[in-house]
Amino acid sequence: MAQLSSSVNPMPMLKDELDIVIPTIRNLDFLEMWRPFFEQYHLIIIQDGDPLQTIKVPKGFDYELYNRNDINRILGQKASCISFKDSVCRCFGYLVSKKKYIYTIDDDCFVANDSSGNDINVIEQHMMNLLTPSTPHFFNTLYDPYASGADFVRGYPFSMREGALTVISHGLWLNMPDYDAPTQLVKPLERNSRYVDAVMTIPKGTLFPMCGMNLAFDRELIGPAMYFGLMGHGQPIGGYDDMWAGWCVKVICDHMGWGVKTGLPYVWHSKASCNRFENLEKEYNGIFWQEEGIPFFQSVALPNECTSVQQCYLELAKQVKEKLGKVDPYFIKLADGMITWTEGWEELNTPMATEN
Amino acid sequence: MAQLSSSVNPMPMLKDELDIVIPTIRNLDFLEMWRPFFEQYHLIIIQDGDPLQTIKVPKGFDYELYNRNDINRILGQKASCISFKDSVCRCFGYLVSKKKYIYTIDDDCFVANDSSGNDINVIEQHMMNLLTPSTPHFFNTLYDPYASGADFVRGYPFSMREGALTVISHGLWLNMPDYDAPTQLVKPLERNSRYVDAVMTIPKGTLFPMCGMNLAFDRELIGPAMYFGLMGHGQPIGGYDDMWAGWCVKVICDHMGWGVKTGLPYVWHSKASCNRFENLEKEYNGIFWQEEGIPFFQSVALPNECTSVQQCYLELAKQVKEKLGKVDPYFIKLADGMITWTEGWEELNTPMATEN
Repeated sequence: MAQLSSSVNPMPMLKDELDIVIPTIRNLDFLEMWRPFFEQYHLIIIQDGDPLQTIKVPKGFDYELYNRNDINRILGQKASCISFKDSVCRCFGYLVSKKKYIYTIDDDCFVANDSSGNDINVIEQHMMNLLTPSTPHFFNTLYDPYASGADFVRGYPFSMREGALTVISHGLWLNMPDYDAPTQLVKPLERNSRYVDAVMTIPKGTLFPMCGMNLAFDRELIGPAMYFGLMGHGQPIGGYDDMWAGWCVKVICDHMGWGVKTGLPYVWHSKASCNRFENLEKEYNGIFWQEEGIPFFQSVALPNECTSVQQCYLELAKQVKEKLGKVDPYFIKLADGMITWTEGWEELNTPMATEN
Repeated sequence: MAQLSSSVNPMPMLKDELDIVIPTIRNLDFLEMWRPFFEQYHLIIIQDGDPLQTIKVPKGFDYELYNRNDINRILGQKASCISFKDSVCRCFGYLVSKKKYIYTIDDDCFVANDSSGNDINVIEQHMMNLLTPSTPHFFNTLYDPYASGADFVRGYPFSMREGALTVISHGLWLNMPDYDAPTQLVKPLERNSRYVDAVMTIPKGTLFPMCGMNLAFDRELIGPAMYFGLMGHGQPIGGYDDMWAGWCVKVICDHMGWGVKTGLPYVWHSKASCNRFENLEKEYNGIFWQEEGIPFFQSVALPNECTSVQQCYLELAKQVKEKLGKVDPYFIKLADGMITWTEGWEELNTPMATEN
């Protein structure tokens, strides 16, 4: 649909409508490489680990930084829903942002090159993905029909060509693929060098493993469900924070009729935290629990009365408690965390809160 | 899964297990370019149009050729289920083949180059797609996990990593994209130059527009449902032969727990039959009818008692008659064609028929 893509091209850079959220435990030297792409945006940095440590941010970036103490101060008792030591703390950034869009990236991700060797502008591609519709109700074999030079193929129903609102854009990774601990143990040397020049919609009714490393979303629409759960420090599970969020948001997007895209843009992932044995330890319970969680999410039904993301999310929390609570008491705590998150979201994102 | 792909690499060329089916109305000079890739296979050529015309096949190819008279002779009264003048006649080749696999290609498709400029061996890639499993029950963000250098990403349930049997491999097209007549009219100059280096499984529950131009499948398993319908000559619809087959086979694959892949390999499509106005005329009814057909196929349920493809297909014919028959009497005729096709399949593909 050249018409559609040309209307969003050149891409608006939306610098007043997007925050970049970065969870970190170290100095943010990695931003130097991102300077041409990130410097015009506002950064929200969530300091994981020891709040007494100082995180250095390269000069010239506009940012706010929150550590554990800040989060406790701002959320009070509700701070219990924000976990630490698993990159899960990034979701606090979604809570305090006042922008329409969020881009979140890990501090071990660098600028990747496209197949012509050019630096990839991740935000431009994510915005292109979010600002053009999705096709969750029918598969287009030539990938994103709204991309420049592409369209719907023969046999694609005309009544479906307006597409659906896109609320999530899931980017991929060159170099270190996002493998689980067992796969890392088995294939320590495997690297991803396959540049797949495509964006596609994940069909309605299909779950996917959402990685938080290179992710953009419409905070206004899907933000209330973008909770990364109780993971990491003090919890019996880690490494499933983004996966949990992905299952929840996909089910809700399907219910709301919204689309999720995956594919471009790539980042170059260096995997700073590459202790495969530690990863196995923290993912251990998740490996078992996902076998119960996936069938739950594949069969979950949200009632028609749920017409807002908040309503969907609270209903999901209720069903998690009822059905996954039987698998392990941890899921009862997690469901409570989901409710606390929703309360925190409402507290910080009501019109009054926005004015303060 | 390097282990799996290495077990099928180097690919067996399966020359005694695959037939190439080509529908045509002209001399098959296009085979010269395919000689290095097709010469070792048996070709089944279906001559569309006037049976008195002589189709020249370049020397050195092993082939059998059927025209309308041959089909009438072989199928007798059942020949009514084989339509002409719409490339739909190719499905007669599936009926008379005795091989496990079919590759079918249009005579305006040529050898394409991959992103490194190398000639693409379409059969090798299709066989790779068919001989490795599919992932219809959960989406893998790094595409086909069974491809060389790829695997399942973090969060992909371990219990699902055996995948499903792949029975269809749908290849794509560079140069002329497979657009419908209205899109061709609106975008006469659009060409597809985007080489997407990926193969993916179309998720369970998702329909797709299956194009017959560059298609491979497991004839033994899904062949009985690979009927291209009553289209073209004497019918109120054309240009939907492969689409119709695609909707039918996808619903049946979902029911049987089998997978359908799309993506690589590409052919270079020159679009010999590029009369956009003629295309509009023949596609005209289909444009309306697909708006009824898609919801029908999206909601169709095959009972558990249907445990073979033939049973599924006859049940589907019954439901087409009942539900789409109301849209237009044409669908009653089409359902009858589906039944006749099944009878023809059984006649030519029973063990006794094979012995003769």
